[in-house]
Amino acid sequence: MQNLSPQKKRGDVMGNNGRSGITYPLGFLASGLHAGIKKGQKRDLSLIFSESPCVVSAVFTTNKFKSNSILYSMKQVRNNINAVLINSGNANTCNGRKSYEDTIALCGELAEILSISKDSVLVASTGSIGQPLPYEKISGTLPELASGLAADKGGQAAEGIMTTDTVIKEFCADTNVSGDVKVVSLGGMAKGSGMIDPCMATMLAFITTDAAIEKVLLDSALKEAVEESFNMITVDNDRSTNDMVLCMANGMAGNSRIAEGGQDYLEFKRCLGEACRDLAKKIAADGEGATRLIEVEVAGAWSIKDARRIAKKVAGSNLFKSSIYGKLPGWGRIIAAVGSVHARVDVRNTEISICGLKVYCGQPVAYSMEEMGRRLEGEEIKVSINVKKGGVKATAWGCDLTEEYVHINKE
Amino acid sequence: MQNLSPQKKRGDVMGNNGRSGITYPLGFLASGLHAGIKKGQKRDLSLIFSESPCVVSAVFTTNKFKSNSILYSMKQVRNNINAVLINSGNANTCNGRKSYEDTIALCGELAEILSISKDSVLVASTGSIGQPLPYEKISGTLPELASGLAADKGGQAAEGIMTTDTVIKEFCADTNVSGDVKVVSLGGMAKGSGMIDPCMATMLAFITTDAAIEKVLLDSALKEAVEESFNMITVDNDRSTNDMVLCMANGMAGNSRIAEGGQDYLEFKRCLGEACRDLAKKIAADGEGATRLIEVEVAGAWSIKDARRIAKKVAGSNLFKSSIYGKLPGWGRIIAAVGSVHARVDVRNTEISICGLKVYCGQPVAYSMEEMGRRLEGEEIKVSINVKKGGVKATAWGCDLTEEYVHINKE
Repeated sequence: MQNLSPQKKRGDVMGNNGRSGITYPLGFLASGLHAGIKKGQKRDLSLIFSESPCVVSAVFTTNKFKSNSILYSMKQVRNNINAVLINSGNANTCNGRKSYEDTIALCGELAEILSISKDSVLVASTGSIGQPLPYEKISGTLPELASGLAADKGGQAAEGIMTTDTVIKEFCADTNVSGDVKVVSLGGMAKGSGMIDPCMATMLAFITTDAAIEKVLLDSALKEAVEESFNMITVDNDRSTNDMVLCMANGMAGNSRIAEGGQDYLEFKRCLGEACRDLAKKIAADGEGATRLIEVEVAGAWSIKDARRIAKKVAGSNLFKSSIYGKLPGWGRIIAAVGSVHARVDVRNTEISICGLKVYCGQPVAYSMEEMGRRLEGEEIKVSINVKKGGVKATAWGCDLTEEYVHINKE
Repeated sequence: MQNLSPQKKRGDVMGNNGRSGITYPLGFLASGLHAGIKKGQKRDLSLIFSESPCVVSAVFTTNKFKSNSILYSMKQVRNNINAVLINSGNANTCNGRKSYEDTIALCGELAEILSISKDSVLVASTGSIGQPLPYEKISGTLPELASGLAADKGGQAAEGIMTTDTVIKEFCADTNVSGDVKVVSLGGMAKGSGMIDPCMATMLAFITTDAAIEKVLLDSALKEAVEESFNMITVDNDRSTNDMVLCMANGMAGNSRIAEGGQDYLEFKRCLGEACRDLAKKIAADGEGATRLIEVEVAGAWSIKDARRIAKKVAGSNLFKSSIYGKLPGWGRIIAAVGSVHARVDVRNTEISICGLKVYCGQPVAYSMEEMGRRLEGEEIKVSINVKKGGVKATAWGCDLTEEYVHINKE
């Protein structure tokens, strides 16, 4: 394994020595290979490894039918963690007791190869439901996966977790803590383009950081970040049995451990929020068949629940999504979506803007069709809704609904 | 107006003298014309008229943004009603105060032409949101609409309420009450193929009956029937601003007024339930772009709420709907939908059958792919789910999701 640079400078976000995504923070290595779970030659098995044991926080799917990988990781997540094994092509869900036992066995084998405790391995899966986990294929690939670990293979690991994704999704950023003395880094990767749902239970995201931080604070920061990011994206209103967001902190930045809710915690939380939002938007933009990212900002809500409900309902409306695909400002469909939610709305004064042009303000507002048509050509469509009931805001992200979405999912 | 046959025989369900749909029961007349609200030559204005004042029950959309037509009808619905004016092509929603005043004026004009009280007219609309109501076009067509009223024009009225519907949707049936002495008839028509949502707020349906029945019992029977029919269909999880289900009872069958919850009430309720279920299934089967009706029956639920939630979630899952379009038994997507609902489920023992073939029973069940492929060619796809938590059942209806749905809604 290569020698790691002990210190970085703020703003060093493009990675150094080829470090990107999850291997951007100090002490994280990764690899990604083709184990034969998927047909063809695509990578389908990824490994994240930290040289130092990590404090870990996770948010797991709320679906009642949980993947064996989820069930196992839920048991292990309280431990300090060194490694995460992730496969694509097989959900490891509803596939019988034997696959659960195989899951445990694989984690044990990996721990032995890496010379770490068998309780310091987590596992995640994504793919088809109901197929037995291909134990032999995965087991046989573990030695090569482990020996291939490197700091410049974050991208390969990000490839290995893709299913119908069309692009890899990575993030990296630095921030300063301990009175601006120490640089702390965050990295991340995510997958997910179908089966994305507003209520967590959505996709896989892995965030790494070299910050030293207490588990209770990491839990709290991640929970809040997930609520405003991954829980606010929607592609098709369905929830997966497999989804998780994981944040691993190995403390190798050498900052004085973040142990209370002061300035350092706030700065870390801000950066973690940015990581989650960035990855969540990348997932929404890469929604199955999508041609555009839709951002719905709701203002003037009575409560955060109201604001989130309205934003997600609009971002998830099939009718509105279809009209954006057709480059039409379907504000009647926005109205229908807003009004159908259990949330407080001033129906006489609600305002709606699409791409910065006001279209409704208690009654229809005249706007330039030509200018609207031009703005709807863009790749990011922004909808602003003010329901005039209070001062709370929320933002949701989705994508347009296209014939291609149906085409992908009928196969 | 033509002379009506004073008495009918049970089983006379094909209509006599050309009576069908809403004009099948005694004393109901209808007409449907092209007023110019829609482009082209299609009928867009319909009238239902009862020779005798009707007791009326209605269920209105729960959307907070309500059509002017809904707002006006909600005020009038406590009165005895003689006429219902329905237009397609314009939703009469979010189109300003003047359109609300025009709505009142049109009802007044129609009442004058028909020589009835201005408070005995209801109104309903379906179409685009945000366009001013074309008052002159409608007003100018009212005399011809009224003079054209006839017992054999139920079908024309059913045409006049269509939007993206591809077929007219009608119902008629007879039943016996008062110790089998009197025949009571029910008729109905409905529209709606986009913007169909599980929670009422969905489409237009009008049911007529010559039964004599107390309003409080009609209310109770309709509420129950709607919950098990129109509230259990889903095309795209969106709710309209305009939807209503209306049941009009004019008492002309001459039965002794149904005034308590005895045998006559139960028989009437059964028949009303059949009418609602029949029309609801016709709406689901004619969902925008649909090629198949999907029926999801959930058994073994802990409560009726649980059963309905699960059934509607599965019937509304974009991923599952897409797989049925592709003639694939996507049971993993059923699992994901079932597990994502807030409802009690025995995840170890849940059973799933598709088209009568068991595919899952706590773990995957082997089935003949060839036989499944053959059965998935059918026009009605039945999914049975037993969640093994109790003894309650519910059924939901939906349709597959096709490229054509997207194509229709991007325009």
